[in-house]
Amino acid sequence: MSITLFDTTLRDGAQTEGISFTVEDKLKITRLLDELGIHYIEGGWPGSNPKDIEYFKAVKGLKLKKAKIVAFSSTRRPKVKVQDDKNIATLLEAQTPVVAIFGKCWDFHVTEALKTTLNENLAMIKDTVSYAKAAGKEVVFDAEHFFDGYKKNPEYALKCLKAAEEAGADILCLCDTNGGSLAYQTQKTINEVKPHYKTPLGIHAHNDSECGVSVTGMAVHCGCTHVQGTINGYGERCGNANLCSVIPILKLNAGINCVTDKQLKRLTEISHHVAEIANLPLSAHQPFVGRSAFSHKGGIHVSAVAKYPETYEHIKPELVGNERRVTVSELSGISNLVYKAKDYGVEIKKDAPEVKELIRILKELEHQGYQFEEGEASFELLVKRALKKIKPHFELVDFKIQNSKEGDLPTFVEAQIKLKVKGQILESRGEGDGPVNALDDALRAVLEKHFPELEQVKLTDYKVRVLDSQAGTASKVRVIIESSDESCSWGTVGVSTNVTEASWQALVDSFEYKLIK
Amino acid sequence: MSITLFDTTLRDGAQTEGISFTVEDKLKITRLLDELGIHYIEGGWPGSNPKDIEYFKAVKGLKLKKAKIVAFSSTRRPKVKVQDDKNIATLLEAQTPVVAIFGKCWDFHVTEALKTTLNENLAMIKDTVSYAKAAGKEVVFDAEHFFDGYKKNPEYALKCLKAAEEAGADILCLCDTNGGSLAYQTQKTINEVKPHYKTPLGIHAHNDSECGVSVTGMAVHCGCTHVQGTINGYGERCGNANLCSVIPILKLNAGINCVTDKQLKRLTEISHHVAEIANLPLSAHQPFVGRSAFSHKGGIHVSAVAKYPETYEHIKPELVGNERRVTVSELSGISNLVYKAKDYGVEIKKDAPEVKELIRILKELEHQGYQFEEGEASFELLVKRALKKIKPHFELVDFKIQNSKEGDLPTFVEAQIKLKVKGQILESRGEGDGPVNALDDALRAVLEKHFPELEQVKLTDYKVRVLDSQAGTASKVRVIIESSDESCSWGTVGVSTNVTEASWQALVDSFEYKLIK
Repeated sequence: MSITLFDTTLRDGAQTEGISFTVEDKLKITRLLDELGIHYIEGGWPGSNPKDIEYFKAVKGLKLKKAKIVAFSSTRRPKVKVQDDKNIATLLEAQTPVVAIFGKCWDFHVTEALKTTLNENLAMIKDTVSYAKAAGKEVVFDAEHFFDGYKKNPEYALKCLKAAEEAGADILCLCDTNGGSLAYQTQKTINEVKPHYKTPLGIHAHNDSECGVSVTGMAVHCGCTHVQGTINGYGERCGNANLCSVIPILKLNAGINCVTDKQLKRLTEISHHVAEIANLPLSAHQPFVGRSAFSHKGGIHVSAVAKYPETYEHIKPELVGNERRVTVSELSGISNLVYKAKDYGVEIKKDAPEVKELIRILKELEHQGYQFEEGEASFELLVKRALKKIKPHFELVDFKIQNSKEGDLPTFVEAQIKLKVKGQILESRGEGDGPVNALDDALRAVLEKHFPELEQVKLTDYKVRVLDSQAGTASKVRVIIESSDESCSWGTVGVSTNVTEASWQALVDSFEYKLIK
Repeated sequence: MSITLFDTTLRDGAQTEGISFTVEDKLKITRLLDELGIHYIEGGWPGSNPKDIEYFKAVKGLKLKKAKIVAFSSTRRPKVKVQDDKNIATLLEAQTPVVAIFGKCWDFHVTEALKTTLNENLAMIKDTVSYAKAAGKEVVFDAEHFFDGYKKNPEYALKCLKAAEEAGADILCLCDTNGGSLAYQTQKTINEVKPHYKTPLGIHAHNDSECGVSVTGMAVHCGCTHVQGTINGYGERCGNANLCSVIPILKLNAGINCVTDKQLKRLTEISHHVAEIANLPLSAHQPFVGRSAFSHKGGIHVSAVAKYPETYEHIKPELVGNERRVTVSELSGISNLVYKAKDYGVEIKKDAPEVKELIRILKELEHQGYQFEEGEASFELLVKRALKKIKPHFELVDFKIQNSKEGDLPTFVEAQIKLKVKGQILESRGEGDGPVNALDDALRAVLEKHFPELEQVKLTDYKVRVLDSQAGTASKVRVIIESSDESCSWGTVGVSTNVTEASWQALVDSFEYKLIK
């Protein structure tokens, strides 16, 4: 079975709340989609905005390996000759080898939204498809609202498809525009519809019922050979069918060779790269490509996965360019700990007494609210301290931080610190935007003299979570600090009812981690 | 058709990377699930960690409307008598009316992960289920890896279910533990399996193929009457079937009355509340409950939706407690403001000059990171201050907060404050668990003498969000404080690079709001 992949990230995906692609963004994404092995790239709707016209001009300069560029448009307007319709003229001016033309297939939309007759709508479909065919285009007919229309007036919905087929459309793409269809409903409709047409059928699903990917898989199972979707499922409201899930499902589960093995291996990278361009965070839990998609937290899972990955992994993560991760948590058992320690270059035996003691400490700390998934450097330090593999590079004698505010003026913060480093007592002071910043400032002033490598350490992220917020201002807080130097980054954690104390713990660990590296 | 909803947010959902529920969190979620109309609430695995044992003790104190609490465990260990198995003893000690017992159904797992014989595994299932039944429990048998096992060795997978049925299991729940099944595969399997059993079947799906919700819908379509899932689809790796999508699909699309109309209307609120407790951001694009789930950006959609919502909405958003959103223009900003002010008992005209000024201030504050959705009392104070409807009850002269730490001892915090109240200068000092707590203490010591009604004010929630976390310890933070007295609760907000300053703003607003009420 052969499938064509049609990406509409640049058109339907651009409707996502929060996305605003520049022409340059669109060209970058076009290149990535081509590298991923996408067959059709829908670049935009030239009739709807000038940015898309610019894109279609610029994209001609790209040397693509395989992908064909597609321009999108509605059918001609009611009561207008197709050759006089501006929108259609702009569509052809985009000079793409392929056009996608969407036409209404739900009688209610025709009479109430378009305010025209059912027959005129059929003529609009026919005229527009014929005109594009006569201009030498490959034509994808997007049957808008097909599933809803077919439910309400099946006869008319079928007539719309027939009009497009008779006019020479190359693909009849069934759209679930409102995203309300479930898999078994799609199955029933496609099984009924398919026998009426010789033209290949396609599927364009939305995710409003969280079924976009599944509906797409079902449609292919029922014989649709053309698949539309977007990278990361971008799209209006709840998004479109997510190609980052559809592609591996087709290739690895259904055995359809829609991209090469090599292209599939780039899936995770390309998903993240497009998210980067879109400037949207990617969910860690996104199937196949998310950071946590193959992470294991439960102790039982970890010990089984270590022996046989297939016990708790539906595919091999490396096939889609992702990787297995084991995370540390209270639910983890000895297996996690031994596995992790090995990662840190520490060999320990499952039945060693210090392992039992470590598990006890770990459980106690997690009960207090420590969380090592994001603060793994603190965990590594904890393990190495408990096993006496490292000694602290500096010790606190004392610190004082003073916050003062007068009337409406901003708060002034000052920190004083005394440390013991290599047997010497050292003092310093710092100022800052807040108590933690002042403490950071003072601490660095002392330490950087003795450990110049700490100058490379940048704090790149600082998070505060209140743990038991019912306690009001006496709540316990967890502070997570992300740090990085030129070669890598690491996370540390601290917990206390005092945000300054929690930050202090995470700061100390951040610097200590750098010093043992 | 009647369906039972089984929520495992507190057990499988707690496996989510980034989630770490306290016992208090779990109790809060339990209450919310009960209000949503969930029939079974799986609270945890008492044999796996002490926190869950604590939860089962505490949950007995809750008065639930309908939900039954479930404790989870594996079957007994191989070659151990069920009455001698510690895990099983702990399970029964949880004293829940229902237990969920998971047993292996995939031959490969039995021989390779459990390292036992196929027959012993059948005995483990039978013994454990019988033992729980004899103890008077309602038993849900979770058939782990059922779909994968059935694919590899259907005969053995069926035997495992039969063992549970013969031992008296009340529900046989088919688990797609690795989340690799697609809707049409689930359909085929359930259609083959169902005729073999009289016991009701259940479905427990994971989302590794982004099909968790769809597979669940399909299973119900094929006759499963028990549905497992989690709020917001929390769960290990890519999560479990998302009940926030499954419930509205069952109720509104499949017409199954699994919750009442009134309960369904609370879906959006409960989804957001659980996300808040989990301290994870909720995707704006999450189906049904996301902020953008019914938002319209495209011009065509907006004008059509204005006339006929069903043109681009698969359900009415208010049915799930969500709302339609259209890209906000400046005009609607003003309309909102006028609407809100009226709520506060302040009549203003759209074209009044102070409205323009208020909009300007508001935009500036939102740009700085203030967010008034959770801090609406601060918004009300802002409006009333700008319109000169209120005057402050007290003014800060100055405060000083000192944090000091010596060696490994806990940090000591002391606050001194000087206020002007009714023309008098008043001083006080306070101590606390952290700088904000100490400030709260000192502030109350002064104010409660002059405004005894402040004694009723309890701070019930305290949240800190880092806004620009790339700035490290110099990041801006937003503090939200929830306060309540005997009759109502209110939220206030403060923003600063200094957490003490931001907390101060929110504290002052909290007290001022009480005083103007």
